[in-house]
Amino acid sequence: MKTERIVLAKRPVGLPTDEIFRYETVEIGQPGDNEIQIEALYISVDPYMRGRMSDSESYVQPFKLDEALNGHVVGRVTESNHDQFETGDIVTGGLPWQKVVNISGDKVIKVSNTEVPLYLYLSVLGMPGQTAYHGLLKIGEPQEGETVVVSAASGAVGSVVGQIAKLKGAHVVGIAGGPEKTAYLTETLGFDVGLDYKDEDFATALSEAVPNGIDVYFENVGGDIADEVFKHLNQFARIPVCGAISGYNDTEIEYGPRIQPTLIKSQALMKGFIVGNYADDFKRASQDLAQWVTEDKIKTKTTVEEGFENLPQAFRNLFTGDNFGKQVVKVAD
Amino acid sequence: MKTERIVLAKRPVGLPTDEIFRYETVEIGQPGDNEIQIEALYISVDPYMRGRMSDSESYVQPFKLDEALNGHVVGRVTESNHDQFETGDIVTGGLPWQKVVNISGDKVIKVSNTEVPLYLYLSVLGMPGQTAYHGLLKIGEPQEGETVVVSAASGAVGSVVGQIAKLKGAHVVGIAGGPEKTAYLTETLGFDVGLDYKDEDFATALSEAVPNGIDVYFENVGGDIADEVFKHLNQFARIPVCGAISGYNDTEIEYGPRIQPTLIKSQALMKGFIVGNYADDFKRASQDLAQWVTEDKIKTKTTVEEGFENLPQAFRNLFTGDNFGKQVVKVAD
Repeated sequence: MKTERIVLAKRPVGLPTDEIFRYETVEIGQPGDNEIQIEALYISVDPYMRGRMSDSESYVQPFKLDEALNGHVVGRVTESNHDQFETGDIVTGGLPWQKVVNISGDKVIKVSNTEVPLYLYLSVLGMPGQTAYHGLLKIGEPQEGETVVVSAASGAVGSVVGQIAKLKGAHVVGIAGGPEKTAYLTETLGFDVGLDYKDEDFATALSEAVPNGIDVYFENVGGDIADEVFKHLNQFARIPVCGAISGYNDTEIEYGPRIQPTLIKSQALMKGFIVGNYADDFKRASQDLAQWVTEDKIKTKTTVEEGFENLPQAFRNLFTGDNFGKQVVKVAD
Repeated sequence: MKTERIVLAKRPVGLPTDEIFRYETVEIGQPGDNEIQIEALYISVDPYMRGRMSDSESYVQPFKLDEALNGHVVGRVTESNHDQFETGDIVTGGLPWQKVVNISGDKVIKVSNTEVPLYLYLSVLGMPGQTAYHGLLKIGEPQEGETVVVSAASGAVGSVVGQIAKLKGAHVVGIAGGPEKTAYLTETLGFDVGLDYKDEDFATALSEAVPNGIDVYFENVGGDIADEVFKHLNQFARIPVCGAISGYNDTEIEYGPRIQPTLIKSQALMKGFIVGNYADDFKRASQDLAQWVTEDKIKTKTTVEEGFENLPQAFRNLFTGDNFGKQVVKVAD
C-alpha cells in the first residue's frame, strides 16, 4: 500500500520555513515478524524537535536529511504480528511523521485507558506531563508556602508544572504571552497570578507578584524573561532548566547577563534535565498524573490542527505563540 | 591605649582606589566582661570582600561607611576576661582591620596547633580551605577518573580544590594567569595540566587538556574563561559556583552567552554556594585539611605583604593578578 510522510529536506536557519519539509508518497509492505502496522491518529509537535533539525551535537541525535521527521504519536494498530497487540489497540510512542507505518511492537506502548481524549497521551499523560512532573518535583522540590514561577505557563509543560505546584501548596505565578493566556492561567488553571511578558510593565508586575521572592523557577523560555525572574531569587532557590524556547531559532548565540553572580548571591541551584533521564519513575508519574486528570485537579488545553499536511505549520506555531496549550495534529479519526 | 584602624571612607566604583580607605587612630579601653584583647598578627584579604564594599544587597551585609573594614584575622590574645582564653593564646575569626581590638571571646576560636605557619589559618586551614573542601566534595563530587577543571587555580581556594581533586583520583586541569603560575600548578601542586588564560591559544589548549570532556568545573572567575570551559561539559557535569572575580570590579552588568542551552544539553548542575552554609561540617573538614597539610599532600603558597598600612594594596593585588597563592598581610610578629 501507499502512504504519505514528511521528510527533512534541509536544515533550517532560524524559524523553519516550508522549504525544509518535503511531502513524499512511499510504498509500505506487510508488517514483518514482531511488527505491527500503525495508523497515526494524532501527531505531536514539540519545541525540542527544533534542536534535532540542526546538525549540532546535542543530547538527542539530529534528524537525518531525507528521512521522515519523528516525534510522539498516538495511533491505532491496523495489523499485528506481535503477540501483545491486536488490531484496534491504541498505542503511543516515538514514530515517524507518516500516516501508516510498520514498526516493531517493542517500540510502542499500549494505552490502557481510551476513555480520555487520546491526544492527552501527547500532553499531560505523555512526555510533556512527565517533563513537568519530574523537573518540578525532583529538581524544583516546591514546599508548601513557597513561591513557584513558571514560564511558557499556558503550554503543555508549563500548565502542568503550575498545577502540580498548586497541589503542593505553593504560591504559583505563571508567565505567558497575551491577555487570553494569562486569564486562562488564573481563571481555569487556578494559578495565583498570570503575567503577560508582552506587557511593558512586566518587570513591575513580576515584582509585585512575588512579594516573598522566588523559591522555584521552572525555566522553559530563557532570554529576557528569565533575566527578569533571576532578580528575585530567594536563598537556596532551585531552577529546573527544561527549555529555552526564546532562543531555539536564533542563528547567533544569545547573550545576556552572566548568571554566576546571581547563583552565588542566592546560593541557587540550576539544573538542566532531559525527561528520559527519569524513565525509571515514569510509571509512578503516569499514575499520579492520570489520577489528577481524572479528579479534574489538572486541567489541560489542546490546540488540535486538522490534517497531516498541516504538521509544519503546527510546528511553527510553537515558536510564534500562535498555539494555546498543547499543540497536536489530528491525522485520522 | 591608642591603636590604628582602616575604615571604608566611600564605596568604590571599579577597582578600589586609595581614596576609599581612611587610616584612623582610635582610643580603646580595657576589655569588658567576657571580652578579650587581641593584637592582629596576620590579616587576610579575600575577593568576596569586594562585594561587601558596595551597598547592594548580597548574602552578606555591606560594610558600613566610616566603620572599620572587617575580615579574617589571626591574632594573639594580649588580655583576657573570658574563661576560655588566656594571654598568649592564638585565635582566629572575623575581626576589624585594626591593630588591637577588644571583642567578645565568643566571636573567635582558639588555634590548637601553632607549629604550622599561623597564616595558614587564613588559607588552607581557614575559610579558603573550607570553601574548596565543601564546594568541591559536596557539589562537585568528583569521581575517580573524572576530569576536574578549576579556575584561579593557583589562588587560595583553587589550589586546594585541585589538590583535593587529585587525592580523589581525578584528572585535574588548572587555569591561571602567566607561565610562572601554570608551572607551579603542575610542578609543585601535582595538577595534570596547567593552562594560561592569557595565552592566545587558550581555547585550543583547553580542548586538548580535556580529551574526555569536563565532569566538574569549580568556578572562581566567570567571564570569558568560564564561557570557554562550558563548551566541554560532559553529561551530568557539576559546577560549584564559588566566585566570579573577573566581574567583581565591573561597573556594568557583565554579558555573555546565556547558560540555559548549555545546561540542558549537558543535563548539568550549577550551584552557587557560600562556605558558611556548611558550618555544621567545618570540624571534619578542618581535620582532613590539617592532616593533608601535615602529610604534605596539600601544598600551599602564600604571598605575605608586610605592614598594616599595606592592606589596601594587598587587597587590590587580588584583582590585578599580582598576588600568587594566598595573599595575607603581616601586621605584627
